[in-house]
Amino acid sequence: MSYFDVASSAPLHPVARQALQASLDEGWADPSRLYREGRRARLLLDAAREAAAEAVGCRPDELVFTSSGTRAVHDGVAGVLAGRRRAGKHLVVSAVEHSSVLHSAAAHEDLGGSVTQVGVGREGAVSVEAFRAALREDTALACLQSANHEVGTEQPVAEAAEACRAAGVPLFVDAAQSLAWGPVAGGWSVLAASAHKWGGPAGVGLLAVRKGTRFSPQGPADERESGRAAGFENIPGMVAAAASLRAVRAEAVEEAARLRELTELIRTRVPELLTDVEVVGDPVRRLPHLVTFSCLYVDGESLLHGLDRAGFSVSSGSSCTSSTLTPSHVLRAMGVVSEGNVRVSLPPGTGAAEVERFLEVLPGVVGEVREKLGAPVAGAEGTAEAVTVDALGMTCPQPVIELGRAIGRVRVGGTVTVLADDEVAAVDIPAWCYTQGHEYVGAEPRPDGGNTYVVRRGM
Amino acid sequence: MSYFDVASSAPLHPVARQALQASLDEGWADPSRLYREGRRARLLLDAAREAAAEAVGCRPDELVFTSSGTRAVHDGVAGVLAGRRRAGKHLVVSAVEHSSVLHSAAAHEDLGGSVTQVGVGREGAVSVEAFRAALREDTALACLQSANHEVGTEQPVAEAAEACRAAGVPLFVDAAQSLAWGPVAGGWSVLAASAHKWGGPAGVGLLAVRKGTRFSPQGPADERESGRAAGFENIPGMVAAAASLRAVRAEAVEEAARLRELTELIRTRVPELLTDVEVVGDPVRRLPHLVTFSCLYVDGESLLHGLDRAGFSVSSGSSCTSSTLTPSHVLRAMGVVSEGNVRVSLPPGTGAAEVERFLEVLPGVVGEVREKLGAPVAGAEGTAEAVTVDALGMTCPQPVIELGRAIGRVRVGGTVTVLADDEVAAVDIPAWCYTQGHEYVGAEPRPDGGNTYVVRRGM
Repeated sequence: MSYFDVASSAPLHPVARQALQASLDEGWADPSRLYREGRRARLLLDAAREAAAEAVGCRPDELVFTSSGTRAVHDGVAGVLAGRRRAGKHLVVSAVEHSSVLHSAAAHEDLGGSVTQVGVGREGAVSVEAFRAALREDTALACLQSANHEVGTEQPVAEAAEACRAAGVPLFVDAAQSLAWGPVAGGWSVLAASAHKWGGPAGVGLLAVRKGTRFSPQGPADERESGRAAGFENIPGMVAAAASLRAVRAEAVEEAARLRELTELIRTRVPELLTDVEVVGDPVRRLPHLVTFSCLYVDGESLLHGLDRAGFSVSSGSSCTSSTLTPSHVLRAMGVVSEGNVRVSLPPGTGAAEVERFLEVLPGVVGEVREKLGAPVAGAEGTAEAVTVDALGMTCPQPVIELGRAIGRVRVGGTVTVLADDEVAAVDIPAWCYTQGHEYVGAEPRPDGGNTYVVRRGM
Repeated sequence: MSYFDVASSAPLHPVARQALQASLDEGWADPSRLYREGRRARLLLDAAREAAAEAVGCRPDELVFTSSGTRAVHDGVAGVLAGRRRAGKHLVVSAVEHSSVLHSAAAHEDLGGSVTQVGVGREGAVSVEAFRAALREDTALACLQSANHEVGTEQPVAEAAEACRAAGVPLFVDAAQSLAWGPVAGGWSVLAASAHKWGGPAGVGLLAVRKGTRFSPQGPADERESGRAAGFENIPGMVAAAASLRAVRAEAVEEAARLRELTELIRTRVPELLTDVEVVGDPVRRLPHLVTFSCLYVDGESLLHGLDRAGFSVSSGSSCTSSTLTPSHVLRAMGVVSEGNVRVSLPPGTGAAEVERFLEVLPGVVGEVREKLGAPVAGAEGTAEAVTVDALGMTCPQPVIELGRAIGRVRVGGTVTVLADDEVAAVDIPAWCYTQGHEYVGAEPRPDGGNTYVVRRGM
């Protein structure tokens, strides 16, 4: 079995396990109590906070432990928005933030705030100019992830922080995907992270708020963690989180170089091994351990099941998986194909042999799904001037498969018209045209639902 | 060392430790993923939910795991208040709820809601009549703890639930202190609890919401735990919480009987061993393992330090401890003395010898503090008609010590006037009169702060 989904959750790091077990005996008492069990718990908590703050690059009194990365994001965003209420109610986020940030933004809108989403380029990064342009007089907060969780693209956080500083706006950085690899560069104001992403235990997040950042915790008062994270402290978890963060950091440079070679191998080999595939995300400015690609004419669920049977655990941003009904907002914002999407994120210690084996089995798994779905064969030479395909009622990836078949029946310069009401088609048909070298003429809404898409054969 | 503060936090139960360690290997993956690590994690989570639901006495789909008992309370109260917004904005709570409930009530008031606090009798229980009378047409929710965390008094939850049912109001029960001993009786609608109180790990709470209770989760959306508890699931913690709850329940009847004898011994012996002491809380309808008493003319911090040096870890609801500046709202609501307060809460397995040893050292520790503070000696026969004591600027327990000394200087029927600006005096002087058999005549505010208290010697 090869677990290639560390971007979702990492197995517990051996150091985390040791630290957890060692602190179960001393870390269960209330650290605010005066008696010795309380004092011992307090010592453990203080040491964990110092270690975590050092790894984050902040002062211990700027960092609190939360009960998850999600809570760090929810409470961090809400705290700054409330603390800066007088500055205004405008929030800036990138379009490819983690759902916890986007859900915080939606909650802010529900409370009467306004939100600007800054779009990204085809490789998944915001441009600093676009980010700067979104900042307004009444902007209370701007949010930018350090690196994207689905495609691995690093964002220009240091430059965005500089733009924010110039505009007098605090920058919130979701560092969940990158903190294992190093501290976040630049003058961020608030930072959130999640321990189980780096091999720490579940149930521990980090929230760092730089001195000078106006912050007003929301929700009922609670005296724990400087009033910023309600609930009795999970000290063994905090100790394990801090210890494992130090441990992964100690190995980070070497491991990053090693894993970057392996993900580079996947980036290079997948397009050689498979037709109709697109590797997405920035090829250079990216996380070392993560690579994402999309296979046309394949549904995500069949692909995940096939890879699982072959011994590989990966995730997918496709809509056609049991756990989600809409395609990844990240792939959608990038304008890339979302069907047959595979995210490979390698845990530290992954061997080259495992990756080689993955590359061996992948073509067979993809081929099997394509055969079952009747995927088009490339290179057909058609003669028709125009073909219309009725894909109404079909779901991803079927409309694109129908389009792919039909394009083989028209001449170069001829058109295919697709009627489709699956909402994913609106993302995948233009993206498919881009990857296949055809012209996406456009789409018109249909009176009874869905759209009429027109594509002109380019080659 | 004897740890007698299990009401704050319990040492990890051996079963919790085993379950935690066993599930670290299988419970780290994302339970919403389709691959085998995810499916294994999901199985563990489902089994933990079933076990916890059985112990609570609800259906598995009515129970979610939260990141703490505090979060279960905050999110449970907010969820019902929002879900029943159309019924009204009135909230009923007892005056002796845990701070997490009272802070939730305060947050509700900040948002424009109204709150009725139902007072308690001198033994710490609400009357069902008073609770019923507080319910209104526009009451969205009523909250009543199963048993009090500071004095151990059980509340009439089943009767309160019946009154709520008749009024069409859901009842929220904070069961943090009692769940280890058995399920909460009666037709409650929402229940919250905290694993570290029964020997489970920190970082796990329970929130049960009965089907049919309108509930609208607040804060940013998150798909975890039916949308009721944001953040990646801490599955090893949940497994350990459920397993240890079953384990303590299996021993509960026997252990309750054993510990009840030990706390009964403390209730009986403390007033024999010490003068000027009051055992508080209901002597019969109470938690089996918890007993609270207050020692006049002693400050809580010195008492805790003295007991800690003697090898006993207890807590105090006194104001005069480092961790708090105001006296316990529970003791205040009961109208009992808050100075020199000691709460003893025995962990399962506490031996009789430990309790005997505690009773041996207690008089010496109390005596030492009283001697240092110059506590009054009972029985002095005074002759003066009236004496005035200036205790301005003095903090608890000094104003009561000055009063105790002065009372020895007046004749029976004579008066002592005390000038004091420590806010605790407003609680402790009337309560002191009650316990000492003197008449509390009343208090008048002083133009430059504080009060003038008048006491008539009764015996």
